[in-house]
Amino acid sequence: MPINAQILDNPKSDRVRRITDLTRAKGRERSGRFLIEGPQAVREAVAWRPDIVQDLYVEVAQALEHPRIISSTLEKIVEQSQDATIYVHRCTGEVIRQISKDAQGILAVGNARAMHTGPEDLELGERPQIAAFWQVRDPGNAGTVIRAADAAGCDAVIFVDDCVDALNPKVVRSTVGSLFHIPVLRMGTEEFFGWAADRKLDVWAADVYGTERRKPESLPQVLANVDSVTSGKAVLFGNEARGLEPAILEQCDRIVSIPIYGKAESLNLGTSAAVMLLSLAMAGRETI
Amino acid sequence: MPINAQILDNPKSDRVRRITDLTRAKGRERSGRFLIEGPQAVREAVAWRPDIVQDLYVEVAQALEHPRIISSTLEKIVEQSQDATIYVHRCTGEVIRQISKDAQGILAVGNARAMHTGPEDLELGERPQIAAFWQVRDPGNAGTVIRAADAAGCDAVIFVDDCVDALNPKVVRSTVGSLFHIPVLRMGTEEFFGWAADRKLDVWAADVYGTERRKPESLPQVLANVDSVTSGKAVLFGNEARGLEPAILEQCDRIVSIPIYGKAESLNLGTSAAVMLLSLAMAGRETI
Repeated sequence: MPINAQILDNPKSDRVRRITDLTRAKGRERSGRFLIEGPQAVREAVAWRPDIVQDLYVEVAQALEHPRIISSTLEKIVEQSQDATIYVHRCTGEVIRQISKDAQGILAVGNARAMHTGPEDLELGERPQIAAFWQVRDPGNAGTVIRAADAAGCDAVIFVDDCVDALNPKVVRSTVGSLFHIPVLRMGTEEFFGWAADRKLDVWAADVYGTERRKPESLPQVLANVDSVTSGKAVLFGNEARGLEPAILEQCDRIVSIPIYGKAESLNLGTSAAVMLLSLAMAGRETI
Repeated sequence: MPINAQILDNPKSDRVRRITDLTRAKGRERSGRFLIEGPQAVREAVAWRPDIVQDLYVEVAQALEHPRIISSTLEKIVEQSQDATIYVHRCTGEVIRQISKDAQGILAVGNARAMHTGPEDLELGERPQIAAFWQVRDPGNAGTVIRAADAAGCDAVIFVDDCVDALNPKVVRSTVGSLFHIPVLRMGTEEFFGWAADRKLDVWAADVYGTERRKPESLPQVLANVDSVTSGKAVLFGNEARGLEPAILEQCDRIVSIPIYGKAESLNLGTSAAVMLLSLAMAGRETI
């Protein structure tokens, strides 16, 4: 339970500069570390993955004789972190804000390499449910879909092909802690289809249009079939603007679309993922 | 098909100032008009509610001898608007950007009073599905839930008690056109429950916790019951941070929660609304 005796009060110090550097991809690559901002994300990291949290930075009020952590919420997170070997640094508000405008008084530095899960590391149960995303580019969307997959009880998230870095601070923040609940893997497109085949998982494409030869099945019809909803599968979602390419759709075992009953043209990626994954989870769990 | 012969090129003109004023609630109240920004929202307004669109402002490139609308997408929207009596003003990019940073070359001014639907104006079918939101405050959330209700084929959206103004430009933009597909009403809390009773609609609360006396029913169990999903109802969602007050939950006929299977703590309001409304719609349409 190491707590730094000194209060960090120099926003221009080398340490602060090095942490701020983690907001950039290059900084994360160079150091093998990443940034976790704000009470929700830090709390979930400390609770579920204390092994990957290295340092915790928390804001103290200095006006008092004895500097005190600025709120009981943050105090609790620091207490929780003391069960693990997490080094706690008390900082001035100025230092915290210099590192991140989204810290709300607390941030942590995590070990990026320890967060890594390789395809061979993933242990799956009998009827695994995987959420896969092809070329998801927007950090906010990436966070939202990880959260949706977590809520639906998926076994893992796979980012396929050229996706945003899951350790981008915006992604971490948008997952509201789900990044520390569920493994997130990266694979190339062919690697993904090969991996699914090895694991005997069907790949379902979530897609509105399908291809010229194959129209999508409608989700409510799929939900009515017990075998469908309980089978082991990976549901693959496309890029937020362009969806899935025909060549990829052709490789999928099924194509399933969410029906739209009103005049709305489409759902966004985050909403589609939540509706599809939670509908399948609800139907699957009710029928087992 | 009136097109202003003159190109508006003065970002400091009175007209530009008056339009910019519509980004503020006071400006909208004073003038009875509101702002529609960006190609998607303007296109949907022109397509579905040309009666409420008064003026259309579109960016032209002036470098050429004959000023031309900057893209074929915008050109098409202007063409479509010519079937209705919408006054088209060609503007410089500077003028458009002065009014809105989110216009992407096109914006429109709508008639706020003509957008108003009163409780007595709403004609409902036999088994209406209404989406109601109590104290939704965030413009982005408000837009997202209107879009979800539209996608689920709801008959109307009701903003209950103190909600964000549905004609706030951020709300309009976040609905991606759904604001022009589905009526959005405002009611006080007691007015809402009275209106639902008059129309013989059950009110369902979408709520994770319920009250001390009443635990929520789980959505998948509700979905399995044909009578439930096809009955006429209004589903009421709470404030994004605080949910629904116990006193309001007690007034509802049923309390229904979306199950969470993973470690995620909760779903955000937009996601909850999409999952609940689309699940009910899918189950209802499949069983009729």
